[in-house]
Amino acid sequence: MRSDNWFSLKYSNGEVVFLDQTKLPAIEDYIHTQSHLRIADAIKRLEIRGAPLIGIAAAYALALSVKEGYSDELFYDSYLTLASTRPTAVNLFNCLNRMKSFCENLPVDERNCQNLITEASAIHKEDELACETLATNGIKIFKSGSRVLTHCNTGQLATGGIGTAFGVILRGFESGLVDMVFADETRPLFQGLRLTSYELSKSNIPFKVIPDSAAGVLIRDGKVDLVITGADRIASNGDSANKLGTSTLSVLCKEYGIPFYIAAPSSTIDLKAGGFIDIPIEERSRT
Amino acid sequence: MRSDNWFSLKYSNGEVVFLDQTKLPAIEDYIHTQSHLRIADAIKRLEIRGAPLIGIAAAYALALSVKEGYSDELFYDSYLTLASTRPTAVNLFNCLNRMKSFCENLPVDERNCQNLITEASAIHKEDELACETLATNGIKIFKSGSRVLTHCNTGQLATGGIGTAFGVILRGFESGLVDMVFADETRPLFQGLRLTSYELSKSNIPFKVIPDSAAGVLIRDGKVDLVITGADRIASNGDSANKLGTSTLSVLCKEYGIPFYIAAPSSTIDLKAGGFIDIPIEERSRT
Repeated sequence: MRSDNWFSLKYSNGEVVFLDQTKLPAIEDYIHTQSHLRIADAIKRLEIRGAPLIGIAAAYALALSVKEGYSDELFYDSYLTLASTRPTAVNLFNCLNRMKSFCENLPVDERNCQNLITEASAIHKEDELACETLATNGIKIFKSGSRVLTHCNTGQLATGGIGTAFGVILRGFESGLVDMVFADETRPLFQGLRLTSYELSKSNIPFKVIPDSAAGVLIRDGKVDLVITGADRIASNGDSANKLGTSTLSVLCKEYGIPFYIAAPSSTIDLKAGGFIDIPIEERSRT
Repeated sequence: MRSDNWFSLKYSNGEVVFLDQTKLPAIEDYIHTQSHLRIADAIKRLEIRGAPLIGIAAAYALALSVKEGYSDELFYDSYLTLASTRPTAVNLFNCLNRMKSFCENLPVDERNCQNLITEASAIHKEDELACETLATNGIKIFKSGSRVLTHCNTGQLATGGIGTAFGVILRGFESGLVDMVFADETRPLFQGLRLTSYELSKSNIPFKVIPDSAAGVLIRDGKVDLVITGADRIASNGDSANKLGTSTLSVLCKEYGIPFYIAAPSSTIDLKAGGFIDIPIEERSRT
C-alpha cells in the first residue's frame, strides 16, 4: 500500500533506515542505524520530522537501545533521552509511554529488544492503517476533476503510512478524481516546497508549488475546488491547530464559498481541550 | 523632507546616484553614473525598482543620453532602449512620454541635456510632493498606538519621495500615532523582508517582519489595528491591483472587522479601466 519506490522510515534486519529529510528534495540520503542516539539526533536535527513519524522512530529507538541486553537503568535513560528530543510533540510522548507500559507489563525475563521491536512495529502498523482508513473515508470529498490545495507536509514524510491529508489526495488521484494539486510552499520552513513537492513528484501527481500568498487569488479565480490540510491538535469542539497559515486558508474558503477539510486520525483529537479560544496560540500546536 | 541618512536615487552634479537594491539590506552600494545605458541596465536588473522610481530614473537617463550633444536619432534610440527595460511598467512609459513631449515642444536649439534634466527633476519633485500630500491626508487613519500591517515595498526605494503606504506610516510614526509595524516578507521576491525592513530600520520605526501567512493569526488575535498597502493600478470603480497576497489581506480584514486601506497617488488611477472583473489577472498589474 505504501509507495514502493521510496520510503521515509522502516525497520529491517535489526536496523532503522530513514530518509534524511533535511537534504530533500535535492539529495535522497538513506541513513542506516542501530543506534537510539543516532535516531534521537535525527529527530533533533529534523532529519526525521512529522508528529506521527517522530513517535514511530522514537519507539523503534527505545527498543534498539536495549539490543545488547536489557536493564531498567538503560531503558529509562533512553526513554528520557528520546523524550527530550522534541519537548512539544505529544505523539512522541504517547508512543514512548506506550512502549514503557508495554515493557513494564512484560515478565522481567521477556524484556528484550525483540519484544520491544514487536510493539514498535505494531505502533507503526497502526499508524499506517489509520492513514489508509482516513484516505478511504476521505476520498468521498472529491468529484471528478478535483483541483485541490494543501498546506505544509502530511504524507509519508510525516507519518507511518501514506499520510493524512496527503493520503486522501493520493487515493483520490489514484481513483481518477484529483486532476491537480496546489501545494503551498509553507513559510517559514518550506515544508511544502521541499517535502510535499517530493511526495507529489514520487506519486506522479500533477502539482504546482505556490507561495502561500497565492492561495487567495487561485481560490478567488475559481482554480481550486477544495482545500485539505492535516492538523496538529483538534479540541473536542472541533477547533483545530495546524501550521501557520491554515486559518487564513479557512477564511478564504469561507469568503469564496469552497469547502475546507481537515484530515486527521482520532489520535489527534484532544478531548481534554474544550476549545482553543482561551489557550495561548503558542500552546495550541504540539508538533 | 526625505530621510537624510540615506536616499534611493538622486541627480547631483551631472550624475545619477542610486542605491543598488539587489544588495539590500546587507550591503549599501551607491552607484554613480552618467550613462543612460547603465541606468537602463539597473532597471532591468532590479537595482532600481518600484514603479514611480523607475519612471524617475528613466527620465534622468533620457536626459543624460544627450549630454554630449543632442540629435533626434540619439534621443529616440535612448527613448526606445529605456522603454524596453520594463515592458509592463505604465509609470515608465508615462515619464518617458512626458520627457518626449517636453523635448518636442522645445525650440530645436534648446533641446539639450540641461533642459531635459530640468524636466526630469520636475517629475521627481512632483512625485516627492505627491508622497507628502498622500501622507498628510493619510495619517487621519491612525489612532494613538496604532499597530499597522503592510505588504511589499512602498517607501523611498519604490518612489521619488517618502513613499505611498510607507509615507503614511512614516508620518504617522513621527506624529506619535504608530507604535508597531508588521511587514509581510512578501513572497516570492521578499520585498518586505529585504527592502521595507531596511526603510523601517532607517526611520527607527519599531517593526517585525513576518511570513505572509502569519498576517491571518495576527489580525485574528487582535494584534493589528489596520492594514495599509500601495497599489499598482486602480480602476475607475475602485478595483485595485497590487502585489500577490494583497487581496488575501483584504479578505482577512473583512472577516475580522478591521480597516484595509490603499495609499496611492492619483496617477495610479486608470480611468480607462472600468473594473478588473473582466481583465485577466496577469494584465491587471503593471509594475
